[in-house]
Amino acid sequence: MAVVVAPRPREHDYGKAHLPEVTVTYRPPLLKRLPLGRGVSVIWAQMDVFEELERIFHPRSIAVVGASAHRDSPGHDYVLSLLQYGFQGAIYPINPRLEELLGLKAYPSVEAVPGPVDYVISCIPNRGVIGLVEECGRKGVQAIQLFTARFSETGREEGKRLERELLLRARAMGVRIIGPNCMGLHYPKLGITFRPDMIAPAGPIGFLSQSGNLLFELNYLGRGRGLFFSKAISYGNGLDLDEADFLRYFAHDPETRIIGAYIEGVKEGRRFWEALREAASVKPTVLLKGGRTEGGGRTASSHTAALAGSYKVWEAAVRQAGALPVKSLEELMDLLIAFSRWTPAKGKGIGVVGGGGGRSVLAADRCEEEGLSTPPLTAEIEAHIAVKAPDLAGWVTNPVDQSILAGSGVGGAEILALMARDPQYDGLVAILGEPWALGRPNAQAIVRRVAQRFLEIGQGIEKPIAVVVNHLDYEEEWQWRLLMEVRRELVEGGMAVFPSVDRAVVALARFLAYWEGRDS
Amino acid sequence: MAVVVAPRPREHDYGKAHLPEVTVTYRPPLLKRLPLGRGVSVIWAQMDVFEELERIFHPRSIAVVGASAHRDSPGHDYVLSLLQYGFQGAIYPINPRLEELLGLKAYPSVEAVPGPVDYVISCIPNRGVIGLVEECGRKGVQAIQLFTARFSETGREEGKRLERELLLRARAMGVRIIGPNCMGLHYPKLGITFRPDMIAPAGPIGFLSQSGNLLFELNYLGRGRGLFFSKAISYGNGLDLDEADFLRYFAHDPETRIIGAYIEGVKEGRRFWEALREAASVKPTVLLKGGRTEGGGRTASSHTAALAGSYKVWEAAVRQAGALPVKSLEELMDLLIAFSRWTPAKGKGIGVVGGGGGRSVLAADRCEEEGLSTPPLTAEIEAHIAVKAPDLAGWVTNPVDQSILAGSGVGGAEILALMARDPQYDGLVAILGEPWALGRPNAQAIVRRVAQRFLEIGQGIEKPIAVVVNHLDYEEEWQWRLLMEVRRELVEGGMAVFPSVDRAVVALARFLAYWEGRDS
Repeated sequence: MAVVVAPRPREHDYGKAHLPEVTVTYRPPLLKRLPLGRGVSVIWAQMDVFEELERIFHPRSIAVVGASAHRDSPGHDYVLSLLQYGFQGAIYPINPRLEELLGLKAYPSVEAVPGPVDYVISCIPNRGVIGLVEECGRKGVQAIQLFTARFSETGREEGKRLERELLLRARAMGVRIIGPNCMGLHYPKLGITFRPDMIAPAGPIGFLSQSGNLLFELNYLGRGRGLFFSKAISYGNGLDLDEADFLRYFAHDPETRIIGAYIEGVKEGRRFWEALREAASVKPTVLLKGGRTEGGGRTASSHTAALAGSYKVWEAAVRQAGALPVKSLEELMDLLIAFSRWTPAKGKGIGVVGGGGGRSVLAADRCEEEGLSTPPLTAEIEAHIAVKAPDLAGWVTNPVDQSILAGSGVGGAEILALMARDPQYDGLVAILGEPWALGRPNAQAIVRRVAQRFLEIGQGIEKPIAVVVNHLDYEEEWQWRLLMEVRRELVEGGMAVFPSVDRAVVALARFLAYWEGRDS
Repeated sequence: MAVVVAPRPREHDYGKAHLPEVTVTYRPPLLKRLPLGRGVSVIWAQMDVFEELERIFHPRSIAVVGASAHRDSPGHDYVLSLLQYGFQGAIYPINPRLEELLGLKAYPSVEAVPGPVDYVISCIPNRGVIGLVEECGRKGVQAIQLFTARFSETGREEGKRLERELLLRARAMGVRIIGPNCMGLHYPKLGITFRPDMIAPAGPIGFLSQSGNLLFELNYLGRGRGLFFSKAISYGNGLDLDEADFLRYFAHDPETRIIGAYIEGVKEGRRFWEALREAASVKPTVLLKGGRTEGGGRTASSHTAALAGSYKVWEAAVRQAGALPVKSLEELMDLLIAFSRWTPAKGKGIGVVGGGGGRSVLAADRCEEEGLSTPPLTAEIEAHIAVKAPDLAGWVTNPVDQSILAGSGVGGAEILALMARDPQYDGLVAILGEPWALGRPNAQAIVRRVAQRFLEIGQGIEKPIAVVVNHLDYEEEWQWRLLMEVRRELVEGGMAVFPSVDRAVVALARFLAYWEGRDS
């Protein structure tokens, strides 16, 4: 029997008049709605880090130190991003050589800012950061995020020494550090982000990443499929606040339903594992590890000074904590989307429609290779088909070969609707806009109509349905546009869309196996 | 010591005046240029099937039986395809209810055609095929290709009986059968294809497929990356001419340098294996098996009546024959492109440029997981970097993290050029148009310039270089267009382009391992 020690509900108010959105009513984060992992009897309510990160994610004001008028520089990007993404708090460009930037008054130093400064983003060279930390301490800044790099990741003694000093000085001054060598916060609800094109609406995914670029890629490649963040953080070298802190924060963050992470190395194994277990026991948690091999580890060391460690040990620990290890950005994206968009489900039986002959055979193979099955059509479905197309009954099977249906009067979506109601099928794969369809004279009409049917069916059922819309790799503009638009409609309608049958099947397999292992 | 029994050179002339392109001078197909597999001492010169298929692939005239004025039907598609793709021989629509079709005179029957008919495509219902075979026999037709389906693949006794009778009658009349239940020939050089949008220039890949749809998909998804066929054949149930025949044909076809196949089941194991060994000993041969599992096998049976058999046995046999087994359409495409575009190479050392921090770490991991390595930069390359950017020497490593280079004056392409000349690197991965680059203010110029540099470097070296251009999955039209256009430039320049780092690395790994296992 699981016993949950939840933190007592409380209220933060970081200045209602100034920034009304940031009033956060803290509630135990979905603990009752989500099942607990096996063998986890107590959820530790370590609220200190939660409170601290809650404050950090809700700054009343942000100063960008090293703000720049040069369009292709981070000192410009940060200011522009906050403005364009709609941050409602004060934004202070800091640069003694600037009067103003993008219509904002600039200040020569953090201390020169008249009002309070909660959060500082540093884009200055590394030699200036010790002075900046001291200044921020005097000003009462809560946290400094350092885009500034060239610390221990350079492999040089000088960089390591500077990093150690940075940590000691920050601790002495009571300022928390995010980074160094990172992009920092992304929080759609408050309009905080780090690049003007790092955009998307708010969603349920909390993400922590040692690579800012990977977080950016995840947003770029995932947003067309509805991969949306509640909050995300790129934390680079993780000198002060680290992976364990962020995991714990997301575990308790009521805006986060699913947790994802890209991690190259872990500072303290035990502390990390406990935070991971805490997170994974209440929310689906998917982890991509960088530095799984010797070469990867060497690269990680020059990237974020991470000590990569053994991947076998890592994978075993992640599984034991109840989290989901993945090895590629693609699988990470697919699982985050699956958990964002599907309600919990168990089972192994998969129904597949929409592919041609070869594709149907390969889909069945992939299902079985991933531990799923493709049960033949039930007698009831066969009987339904027999009414319209007597020739097909007993021949057409699951996966439903679209080329057999051609001209029969029975459509793939029709069979999908029958499968959706049939308890034999625990999950569905609905393939849309395959080349065979794009080549038809009335391709646009067919593809849009079938998309609409898939959407209706998907919205009417609880079981997970993976709609496959191929990559938009076409050279013909109308084909790219057609697939892009139907994908958008499906995503806006709440569907989980995958760019290939194989990827849909892998996501379904891991999703169903995850809930199979839970007590709910 | 390998001994090759090559067929004597000969000439076919199927009517020069009528169809000048089809004069084929037969030469031993590249046997001298390509290394032989281990333990293969004799290449059997079974030229009967070769001659027969050579004739079938070079028809002077094609009749489409069941030709139709209905735009969305195969009887219309075949005629339109031949016209649009530029078949220079005679095209005869056959349909007693038509006077003409698409400007061509129609005939009520094959026998009513005034001149000779070499090749017949059947789109009529299955009940008419026995009569058609007899008619074709009387007319002296060489081969009938049956799009017509509903034979043994229906699982019904009636269909099986009809199929047996079809074979017996065809043998008795001296007519060869392609199919039934297939799309038939695709031969760019002669302008033969089966759908109006099944198009692309001629290339080096001979392909045989039990699924017409899969062959179509391969063309649709692969042509933007330069996956071009010498000849391809969709052969469905393979009732008469089968996988062994087509393999043998491609083994000796001088227009084919690489062989690919999608096979669901094999009729005679020994004969198939010998043909496969024959093919694989002279040309890289890549096989995708459908029906690897019970569910896949069941689906294959309803698709092409194939008996799928054990996958383990299959995979072992394929490897023993010296061919390359793959399990997905994606890997099939990637290997066919790799072998089309790279000259033979061995080794394990891979140089990677163009990715951000996380991507570089993950690239190194994937290399090692695939049996490759990412050797650190040589002292020579480090020295070169040190001249321009002293700070980076000893820090930047391989894979080259683009974010470390930012603002240093040293570009990724510059390091790639150094790696291209360094014997430590046996293969290269050059990443282009990643999200980090698309987000910059001058993205278009940067991406196009770097593409040009990659192209120059690639064209100047013998070692395999995989250029990664992400899937065109963007919603912004300019991003789709930019990546589509640079991809096209690279492909037209002869480069092998892959849609992700992982897929590039897997292709490199299998390509290098393939040649490692050869004596050349």
